[in-house]
Amino acid sequence: MPDTVKYLLEESRIPRSWYNLVADLPTPPPAVLHPGTLQPVGPGDLEPLFPMSLILQEVTAEREVEIPEPVREVYKQWRPSPLFRARRLEKALDTPARIYYKYEGVSPAGSHKPNTAVPQAFYNKEAGIHKITTETGAGQWGSSLAFAGALFGVQVDVYMVRVSYNQKPYRRALMETYGARCVASPSNETASGRAVLANRPDHPGSLGIAISEAVELAAQRDDTKYALGSVLNHVLLHQTVLGQEAMAQLEMANDYPDVIVGCTGGGSNFAGIAFPFLGAQLRGGKKTRIVAVEPSACPSLTRGRYAYDFGDTAHLTPLTKMHTLGSTFTPPGFHAGGLRYHGMAPLVSHVKELGLIEAKAFHQLACFSAGVQFARAEGIVPAPEANHAVRGAIDEALRCKQEGRSEAILFNLCGHGHFDMQAYIDYFAGKLTDQEYDESELAMALAGLPSVPA
Amino acid sequence: MPDTVKYLLEESRIPRSWYNLVADLPTPPPAVLHPGTLQPVGPGDLEPLFPMSLILQEVTAEREVEIPEPVREVYKQWRPSPLFRARRLEKALDTPARIYYKYEGVSPAGSHKPNTAVPQAFYNKEAGIHKITTETGAGQWGSSLAFAGALFGVQVDVYMVRVSYNQKPYRRALMETYGARCVASPSNETASGRAVLANRPDHPGSLGIAISEAVELAAQRDDTKYALGSVLNHVLLHQTVLGQEAMAQLEMANDYPDVIVGCTGGGSNFAGIAFPFLGAQLRGGKKTRIVAVEPSACPSLTRGRYAYDFGDTAHLTPLTKMHTLGSTFTPPGFHAGGLRYHGMAPLVSHVKELGLIEAKAFHQLACFSAGVQFARAEGIVPAPEANHAVRGAIDEALRCKQEGRSEAILFNLCGHGHFDMQAYIDYFAGKLTDQEYDESELAMALAGLPSVPA
Repeated sequence: MPDTVKYLLEESRIPRSWYNLVADLPTPPPAVLHPGTLQPVGPGDLEPLFPMSLILQEVTAEREVEIPEPVREVYKQWRPSPLFRARRLEKALDTPARIYYKYEGVSPAGSHKPNTAVPQAFYNKEAGIHKITTETGAGQWGSSLAFAGALFGVQVDVYMVRVSYNQKPYRRALMETYGARCVASPSNETASGRAVLANRPDHPGSLGIAISEAVELAAQRDDTKYALGSVLNHVLLHQTVLGQEAMAQLEMANDYPDVIVGCTGGGSNFAGIAFPFLGAQLRGGKKTRIVAVEPSACPSLTRGRYAYDFGDTAHLTPLTKMHTLGSTFTPPGFHAGGLRYHGMAPLVSHVKELGLIEAKAFHQLACFSAGVQFARAEGIVPAPEANHAVRGAIDEALRCKQEGRSEAILFNLCGHGHFDMQAYIDYFAGKLTDQEYDESELAMALAGLPSVPA
Repeated sequence: MPDTVKYLLEESRIPRSWYNLVADLPTPPPAVLHPGTLQPVGPGDLEPLFPMSLILQEVTAEREVEIPEPVREVYKQWRPSPLFRARRLEKALDTPARIYYKYEGVSPAGSHKPNTAVPQAFYNKEAGIHKITTETGAGQWGSSLAFAGALFGVQVDVYMVRVSYNQKPYRRALMETYGARCVASPSNETASGRAVLANRPDHPGSLGIAISEAVELAAQRDDTKYALGSVLNHVLLHQTVLGQEAMAQLEMANDYPDVIVGCTGGGSNFAGIAFPFLGAQLRGGKKTRIVAVEPSACPSLTRGRYAYDFGDTAHLTPLTKMHTLGSTFTPPGFHAGGLRYHGMAPLVSHVKELGLIEAKAFHQLACFSAGVQFARAEGIVPAPEANHAVRGAIDEALRCKQEGRSEAILFNLCGHGHFDMQAYIDYFAGKLTDQEYDESELAMALAGLPSVPA
């Protein structure tokens, strides 16, 4: 059996700043627009929702944004996270490729989400905020913000997509153990929720609706702000600790990735692992292929339109230009809840448009098959979302085998699957299918995109 | 908020040998007896069940047992595990005590169990064994052996206590994801199982019955051996990587424990953290109070008899002298499944009899209350078993506060609770009670102890 190869950095090597790709882009990303005026929003427009420190991070063009010491202190609990060379998987695949994976399942919530939950809780606390509202799908984000809120003494109210609320009581219990309040969405606590329920009392909910509820409540009170777990520039920014650490760890390995693979839902774990390498390339460094992997059943990057759209269903958010399936699009109920969002991070969409990254879509059976192969070789059971990255990485390794090329492949294993075992049960029982989205629903959702003059 | 204080050792500091307390004991532990002859068993008697390398570890009096390199290689995946100073918990308790915890939830199975699962799979593989049978209660042990079996290419058949098999499908799915076969016990696959089912077709099962089934099958085939996740000397031996690492980490902290707390089911995580310190004390080192914490509903150390008894229900195992509630004792269905065993590791029982350790019993509500307090302060949700150690450590810290003493308290946080969230759901819903065992059942079980002349 091959040896275990783990690259660990000293605690002092936790990055001191987050990396902002905007500083290195050939063209800046399109402006965020106010949905009423269709004019670019200013920091003041976002103030009801976010503390000013996060708003400034959202719009900054500085290359480096300093990480506050209290945030680095909390990061120390699990960071720097390990980078592994997947030697046992390489052997199982009989590939000449060198496969590396960054493993974020070591965080207390079991995923990469605390990387941004912690600074978001910190900046809110610093701004005197008492309560943060947010949405969650599968619960990875909600439990991460609940964790961060407990540490900084900020109350967290999580609006959880109802179908997940019912199907994933364990994630909900994790949030409650951390002291957060978890509410099934759509709820009767908001006008947005009541409007949905009036039409359909048994509505299963969606991320778009849950965002509307959390945004609505935050906008109403001075001591309450909103937090989002992906999509926004400052969230992607916080996740760049991932790629920065991986770069230093690959330096220890005396290697550099030919290919980077990440899974994309809102885009933050993908950006976190890829953007520091992409930035290095844009500054004249070595070229790396960067591959975003998304679910075929919710294919914003591969099948969505690059257009201005709302981030939520009730249209309370600003308009951002992104790859979108339309804010009313409801994907089938496949098992990677964290990848079931109609849009894509504007910054990820922008670099896709610039031709700086590729995108692929996979069906879920192929992803679970890859996840099981990975678990048996490497000993770690990935989250269903992460299985998309595993699938992408294995396919690259098999291509290397076919072409006889010894490339270095890096992927982000963004979380463990301990809370998602029902998906594996269904997979082994033959109950999972490769669900397709409804083409006519997609057409209708795209037809409903807001009209924004070029 | 206090800083995070984490002590990490370099990979090269993974211990090169396991520590054997027997070498430093003032008197050796009582012999293991053959149930038929009542004579001490020899290595040959155990050969149907274990590979010879493990049998020799079971009986060795050598102080150090070398850890094979392939085992250290697998350990590297998550070892050395971190030692934390619980600064945020200390602040919440307002205690002058310094609280340290070793955290074993970072292993791929989420607990300390892989520390022995990996060497057991390795030695079996080395001996040409194709299949290992074992039992599991809550599933921590079964999933750890499944993980180790996957890495070394040994088939693992797990007999899982039926009530847990039904209540914990996620643990079962974890074992199956690793490629193990998981069977509800009592089953129709063994004479022991069929005998139980003949009497009571809906029998919920017990660890003692599951052990009988796994032992019976292993004894029948040359290519199949049995593995136990706790109790035996070689299992405790393997867990001493825990205490050895903690000792080195406390050296980094320039500190030494006044008190060590561990939870006890079969005794292996407790022995793992405590025995290296106890050995140092016996060799003339600093004195440390060592406190074993067990559930009040299954109180082998505090209420059991120190006597020869069987390890299983069908009386297929040798007789060991230990604190036992009687092999027919069935504890109430409380939530720390890993602590629901009628006996105690003979070596832990022996040092208890020698007055070298203390034992305490706690009810489950007090343990869950401690676990929730810990989760909100330190950000990690403990397994129900580990909550017993947390309770014990918090009580020591509160005593320090009352006495105005600044003692150093070390405890082992043996696993995370991600697979046990139903217990937290029940706790928050007010459905957990402080169950008492049945006094008359205990009396009957003790009356049934085998008669062994002194």
